[in-house]
Amino acid sequence: MLCETIKLYEGREDVTLTTYLWDDAPDLLHGKSRPAVIICPGGAYLNLSNGEGEPVALAFANMGYHAFVLKYSVYSEGVESGDMFAAVGQGVKEHCMFPKPMQDIGAAMLYIRQHSEKWHVNMEQVAICGFSAGAHNCAMYSVYWDKPEIAGFFDVDPQLLRPAACILGYPITDYVYMQGCQETAKAASGKESEQPDEAFSPVALFDQSNLAFLGTTQPNEKQLFKVSPVYLVDRNTPPTFLWATSEDNLVPVQHSILMARSLADAGVPFELHIFEKGMHGLGVATEGGSGNLWTVNEAAAKWVPMCHKWLQERFSIPLDEKPFWMDL
Amino acid sequence: MLCETIKLYEGREDVTLTTYLWDDAPDLLHGKSRPAVIICPGGAYLNLSNGEGEPVALAFANMGYHAFVLKYSVYSEGVESGDMFAAVGQGVKEHCMFPKPMQDIGAAMLYIRQHSEKWHVNMEQVAICGFSAGAHNCAMYSVYWDKPEIAGFFDVDPQLLRPAACILGYPITDYVYMQGCQETAKAASGKESEQPDEAFSPVALFDQSNLAFLGTTQPNEKQLFKVSPVYLVDRNTPPTFLWATSEDNLVPVQHSILMARSLADAGVPFELHIFEKGMHGLGVATEGGSGNLWTVNEAAAKWVPMCHKWLQERFSIPLDEKPFWMDL
Repeated sequence: MLCETIKLYEGREDVTLTTYLWDDAPDLLHGKSRPAVIICPGGAYLNLSNGEGEPVALAFANMGYHAFVLKYSVYSEGVESGDMFAAVGQGVKEHCMFPKPMQDIGAAMLYIRQHSEKWHVNMEQVAICGFSAGAHNCAMYSVYWDKPEIAGFFDVDPQLLRPAACILGYPITDYVYMQGCQETAKAASGKESEQPDEAFSPVALFDQSNLAFLGTTQPNEKQLFKVSPVYLVDRNTPPTFLWATSEDNLVPVQHSILMARSLADAGVPFELHIFEKGMHGLGVATEGGSGNLWTVNEAAAKWVPMCHKWLQERFSIPLDEKPFWMDL
Repeated sequence: MLCETIKLYEGREDVTLTTYLWDDAPDLLHGKSRPAVIICPGGAYLNLSNGEGEPVALAFANMGYHAFVLKYSVYSEGVESGDMFAAVGQGVKEHCMFPKPMQDIGAAMLYIRQHSEKWHVNMEQVAICGFSAGAHNCAMYSVYWDKPEIAGFFDVDPQLLRPAACILGYPITDYVYMQGCQETAKAASGKESEQPDEAFSPVALFDQSNLAFLGTTQPNEKQLFKVSPVYLVDRNTPPTFLWATSEDNLVPVQHSILMARSLADAGVPFELHIFEKGMHGLGVATEGGSGNLWTVNEAAAKWVPMCHKWLQERFSIPLDEKPFWMDL
């Protein structure tokens, strides 16, 4: 396996692609290409969660796919504290604002394409997979990949950027809905904006996240619509696998349901699994892929084999009919 | 993930340890240690199968364990043709003869121990896992690790070499039984020894394998007993997970049954799964871990989750009670 971390932009340390590439071997695929998955961890556009990176890459690698973990542009600029609020209070930062994070996925796609022969990647079978804000980033890419914001930005044939499938874990999909939740919560608490020191209140978190991603804690309606994939799904949106937990008290499950409704309305093939139990941020939800007992969830962990089954309907491992030594 | 290939002996290219080491991260185990598995691919002591290396490492990595693929001493000296007979006809080669291949496991164990702090490996939870001849090598290590042939050779406290568990896929365990099969087959065919050009006849293969591992195609009884783990199991043999297919027409399933009998007699905890269907050399038996359709076997592929369940009874991922950020 070739595991290396590649800087996607010269002069920037924070946007990287980490490879999990299968070795080629005569008794495995012998030069034939494998499907691949680009993984976007979550972290509210403030930082990036490791628990939604490597464990997910290994789950997809174990299916026979190449995997890539993409560290896209976020507010903390690659600081690895694990604390989402570690970098707050530094004002507006242009580098991580819309549309940069989804353009990073485009940059990753083009980089992989450049190396697809050497790496044996089947570019017709590259999925994107994200969690929480990373899932928002993937959903955004799903609806913008062929539009001026991405294809136009790179000035290439949009087909070079097409994702084969999109996998969304507990995504944020509707900023208009989110803004409504923020306003309701603020009205209930009697405060305009909570402070970051009230660490994990969703209201404080989304204010900081909005500052990072939209440059303001008070985005206007035009901005909100522009970053809400639910209103932008069209026939070029790739087949989508959605999963979430109904108990999620950070990103309400409504985001997944609203996205499913939009996909259904547009006739995009999709699959949705909402598990009852489980907090936000489960990742692969297994013991092996967790750091603490709260993210181990046997029921929700089934999203991985279910997603595998779903991918197998469109991804293929190019197996020989019989062992190669029979023809020696 | 740190993937690198390390030469275990200065001046030798053929004996290597390839690492599949989990990255440490604040939101994963944060410096705490993981269990590990050392994997020995098969190849009749003539070469080493890639299909029983990386796919297996990724299966164990996906359980949250560190994994290592060990290329131990074999006749072809690391030539990557995939053709087991590619290197035959070069006479006796000392470097791959008993007890060298099992000593290579000892060298790997000591190398991992030296790096266990840096790599976060829990040395009390290091299993060995092999397939076919690689399973024979692991079974040999299981019964010899504390004996003069290994502990004496390295001149260390045997406890530094103790394997926590042993996982054997379609192993060779009884050379006395194998020799009987060889003699019966030769008598039936009327030939003393088949030629390598009759490529995959088991008789020709085992003659070549015996030349590689024992230095002769006609090993004597003393030699045969010395390399037959079934006669050497004792109370220091680690808990063992065995699996095979009853249809295996290269290494008869009797080898697994005989080993289970020996483990039962010695009171060593073990688990045995014999699937009905399936050829020799299935490895993980999944689509993703295969090179051809013959080694994809849904029933036999269950050995991986069954082995995971078995390992979970003795291996532990040191999870925190709750997410680390709750204490920030």
